[in-house]
Amino acid sequence: MRATILAVGSELLSTERLDTNSLRLTALLEASGVELIRKSVVGDLEPEIAAEVAALWGASDLVLVSGGLGPTADDLTREAAARALGVALVTDPAVIEAIEARFAAFGRKVSPNNLKQAQVLAGGRALANPHGTAPGQLFERDGKALFLFPGVPHELDHLAAEHLRPWLSAHAGDVAREAVTLKIAMRPESEVDQQLEPAYREFGREWITVLASPGEIRIVLNASGREAERRAVLGRLRARVLELVGEHVFAEGSARTLEQVVGERLAAAGRTVSVAESCTGGLLAERLTRVPGSSAWFSGGVVAYANARKESWLGVRAVDLAAHGAVSDVVARAMASGIRQATGSDFGVAITGIAGPDGGSEAKPVGTVHVAIAGPGDDDSCHRVARFPGERERIRLFAAQMALEMLRRELR
Amino acid sequence: MRATILAVGSELLSTERLDTNSLRLTALLEASGVELIRKSVVGDLEPEIAAEVAALWGASDLVLVSGGLGPTADDLTREAAARALGVALVTDPAVIEAIEARFAAFGRKVSPNNLKQAQVLAGGRALANPHGTAPGQLFERDGKALFLFPGVPHELDHLAAEHLRPWLSAHAGDVAREAVTLKIAMRPESEVDQQLEPAYREFGREWITVLASPGEIRIVLNASGREAERRAVLGRLRARVLELVGEHVFAEGSARTLEQVVGERLAAAGRTVSVAESCTGGLLAERLTRVPGSSAWFSGGVVAYANARKESWLGVRAVDLAAHGAVSDVVARAMASGIRQATGSDFGVAITGIAGPDGGSEAKPVGTVHVAIAGPGDDDSCHRVARFPGERERIRLFAAQMALEMLRRELR
Repeated sequence: MRATILAVGSELLSTERLDTNSLRLTALLEASGVELIRKSVVGDLEPEIAAEVAALWGASDLVLVSGGLGPTADDLTREAAARALGVALVTDPAVIEAIEARFAAFGRKVSPNNLKQAQVLAGGRALANPHGTAPGQLFERDGKALFLFPGVPHELDHLAAEHLRPWLSAHAGDVAREAVTLKIAMRPESEVDQQLEPAYREFGREWITVLASPGEIRIVLNASGREAERRAVLGRLRARVLELVGEHVFAEGSARTLEQVVGERLAAAGRTVSVAESCTGGLLAERLTRVPGSSAWFSGGVVAYANARKESWLGVRAVDLAAHGAVSDVVARAMASGIRQATGSDFGVAITGIAGPDGGSEAKPVGTVHVAIAGPGDDDSCHRVARFPGERERIRLFAAQMALEMLRRELR
Repeated sequence: MRATILAVGSELLSTERLDTNSLRLTALLEASGVELIRKSVVGDLEPEIAAEVAALWGASDLVLVSGGLGPTADDLTREAAARALGVALVTDPAVIEAIEARFAAFGRKVSPNNLKQAQVLAGGRALANPHGTAPGQLFERDGKALFLFPGVPHELDHLAAEHLRPWLSAHAGDVAREAVTLKIAMRPESEVDQQLEPAYREFGREWITVLASPGEIRIVLNASGREAERRAVLGRLRARVLELVGEHVFAEGSARTLEQVVGERLAAAGRTVSVAESCTGGLLAERLTRVPGSSAWFSGGVVAYANARKESWLGVRAVDLAAHGAVSDVVARAMASGIRQATGSDFGVAITGIAGPDGGSEAKPVGTVHVAIAGPGDDDSCHRVARFPGERERIRLFAAQMALEMLRRELR
């Protein structure tokens, strides 16, 4: 089965917004092994929407449309889909009732433009939307299906879970595609790619995708077939890839973050951490405290840009600052043990560096970052220096990522 | 002139990646007043690419394609475009020379698959790519144009600036569209919408777009026509909108951030700020220090989750913590003046709240946030309490945004 996705909305053709509803729908398609062959965006113009619906209906077995179902004059998806399919729109009294009940609950009267949301493709049916006034729609003909979803993300999510998911289960058959994502921090893409070479040869390159973003690599492993078959292949593929790069993998699952993994390890070990940041300006603390429940293992942090703060809050010695400069291994180590002592935590992590655009020198160019960790035992302390490419934001991102990865390795 | 954009790449049809190249191209189209009528994504399959290029060539005057120009087996845009247009591919010796020179500079030999990048649409021409091996291409026929760009963002940026921009200047004519973005923080969308009602009536609703994201509203004002004419209309529209909601506008220009504006005001006034954060965990410090040059006015910050930190770092009294709780106006004010004293800064900003998912109570539910500012004068101090909806990340985002907006107003 081949699917296509269309997002309707003029704002999605501007620089101000991007269609992200398609990602939600894609996730359901991927889980059912349905191949997505095209996605597109058109504005709020009836002829454009109609032409694109007709084209997608011709090119695929399942067409998923989001947006343009509201009550305003520029909500034209219903009319356009009817024209594309050559069917009429008919009023569904059950939808009118639902809209009236919804308005009554808020103590408001239904305005006439709201009633056009009760217009349903003849031969199709409305999909009740408990979170809004515009229902979804499902139209089936000649073994093909068209779904219309509202553009509001949580309304779309609800309707897709209630109606598209079971439809896919019933129609997609038992040959599906399945994926596992492995995540690696702070390794060069080319190096990981080279280490994966044997797996490429043994399993075929098309089943292993390597996606790089700053400081993070996702290895997406795929298998397709009936459940038992694809599980078996995926199991072998996963085992082989872990053999090759497993020592670097910090998580399975694309939603799992490095800070979650670090937090879980701290919680499991009954350990606490505190942080002292210079160039990252709070980014490391912010990432750690994003994790729900982090108050159990996060003992506090300071953002010590100025040397005076490094002295008063972290006990860094003025003589070290003068002799080595704020961006040095000596000061990074002093900051790490200083924050550890100030908070009484088990681990102290410190970052000091030059994020730019100013402040670089020949000896310490922009991008130079020192990270130090002070731990309870002598062999729990470490230090690394790196020079990161790119601009301020990217350097800060790399620096925080390196600190988290060092802490993760320290906690093994 | 009507334009369409196509992104080629199977990874752009997965949940792992989104096409963002189209935004870069859209910005150039908008600046030239060229209407974008559709954008789409297809995978690395020659028939799909060819069918979509043919459809877009039929539907528009200008087709912009990105991706699929590299050396590997799944780079098929050249072949597909040739098929769609019914022309041959011919080898451009100048491109071969450029590829060989590039490889020689890195001390590497050219592999045969790299040479396919020298295949150019017959009747078109290669657009030299100094940042990579794959050149772009431009093909013109019947008053229409097709551009092929590499998918790597900075290569595309360079080629678009060097070739698409001048092409648009020469072809788009003098009737263009122009936009101005005004930004507002922490106001309800419905309220802003209502305040804009007179401008909707006077100028027409289609020229004013209101886009809301958590804690921030962008009002995009548009005008179209010849330069003098659209400038005049835009000037009147802007003046009218500023009359209606100007007191809330913190910036003009969609790229300008609240933290930039706050930083500029601090710098201009020769003032400094320090921050003490509980539930935001460093997010406020991180946003302030994102601004280049922030070391001139950012005096430091602490992330004081634990009460012990609030006492030792900020001088919050144990008796106040016990009597009022950590999430209270008394403690927020004490944190603000505590961080101000600890750093010797002009302003101290404090955030304390319950971001959840745990820690809420009936009296202080999840989402309750206190923000306090301590300043040099008696009337420079303020406090606000809010209850934000949503989940942990959203609550933290709102809290930091409210603190920045309060500080901005304090600095007027």
